Amino acid sequence: MTSATGERRGGNGRAGRDPYDLAAVLDIATAAFNEFGYEATSMGVLAERLGTSKSAIYYHVTSKEDLLRLALDRALGELERVLEQEGATTGKADARLRFVVRGAVRVLVDDLPYVTLLLRLRGNSAVEREALERRREFDHAVARLVDEARDEGSLRADIDARTTTRLLFGMINSIVEWYRPGGPLTPDQLADDVISVAFDGVARA
Amino acid sequence: MTSATGERRGGNGRAGRDPYDLAAVLDIATAAFNEFGYEATSMGVLAERLGTSKSAIYYHVTSKEDLLRLALDRALGELERVLEQEGATTGKADARLRFVVRGAVRVLVDDLPYVTLLLRLRGNSAVEREALERRREFDHAVARLVDEARDEGSLRADIDARTTTRLLFGMINSIVEWYRPGGPLTPDQLADDVISVAFDGVARA
Repeated sequence: MTSATGERRGGNGRAGRDPYDLAAVLDIATAAFNEFGYEATSMGVLAERLGTSKSAIYYHVTSKEDLLRLALDRALGELERVLEQEGATTGKADARLRFVVRGAVRVLVDDLPYVTLLLRLRGNSAVEREALERRREFDHAVARLVDEARDEGSLRADIDARTTTRLLFGMINSIVEWYRPGGPLTPDQLADDVISVAFDGVARA
Repeated sequence: MTSATGERRGGNGRAGRDPYDLAAVLDIATAAFNEFGYEATSMGVLAERLGTSKSAIYYHVTSKEDLLRLALDRALGELERVLEQEGATTGKADARLRFVVRGAVRVLVDDLPYVTLLLRLRGNSAVEREALERRREFDHAVARLVDEARDEGSLRADIDARTTTRLLFGMINSIVEWYRPGGPLTPDQLADDVISVAFDGVARA
């Protein structure tokens, strides 16, 4: 997992005056955006939740929109990274698709609040529309993998490729609505279950 | 499809003074709730969209919350009706489960805005919490069907019944995010595709 921290931290002398780093601010902001909605969340509320002042937040970012952009970038960056890994770029399309589905489930579980924020976007601002555009590019990359897997004969061909991709990601994305980390269902078991149900269905073979 | 109209319409003499019936008001209100969010939608905005006055809306309902309650009741009522039909109550559990999945897809498509509203609820008020409770009861009924279908040997038993139900409904519910009525994918074809992918998976058998 990467964090969006970095450029504006670092000086040791700052530790006393800046107890909360950007990663912590982003965590709190993302949780609040998910709970109250982005519009309804004020910088004052974020400061209160962090137990700090608004100026301590402005030390890291220039605006609330900046926080939204960084939070969405985190979710999108992780998803895009899955596509760049060797498992997603070499081998049979079927294996690459399974790798990407598994990787997407992992990102979703590891960065649950961030992906939740991404999936609930409506495109109300330039920042949101830009994020939706990146998400569409990710979806298209997966759709191309589905096409390739169909062409090689690994996937059923009686269902439209677009519908297949949407049902597949509908199932995966729904995880943000019910999965609770730390429960009896481990991330690895969840990924296994998703792969099993998505590729082979719920019926007994 | 039932409508929530009835009790307060009817007198022929009213036609001139009441051009919009409750069904039309509910359609407009549900669309606005989905577009702007329930909190952000005022009765004034609804009146404007209907090209009428607020008092014309208050002729049908006593409050905005009343509209929300009626809209949610329509989606829930239709879903609950699926469970009461003969296909859902008699025969093998596997066939009953498929009947309910197909019926849920149809309700979702036929009442898309209403089900969208239901699925996006957060439980911010008594009306929302009551609707969520009814939705949970529906989900539990489906979960019991999944259990029965596993017990009779129709469904795979290597995945937790709860996870199976959630992935199944994650796939179905995601339809509200991408399906557009009137496009090339007909409701019947969509229902067939959902049944195929959910029960048999996307992999070539």
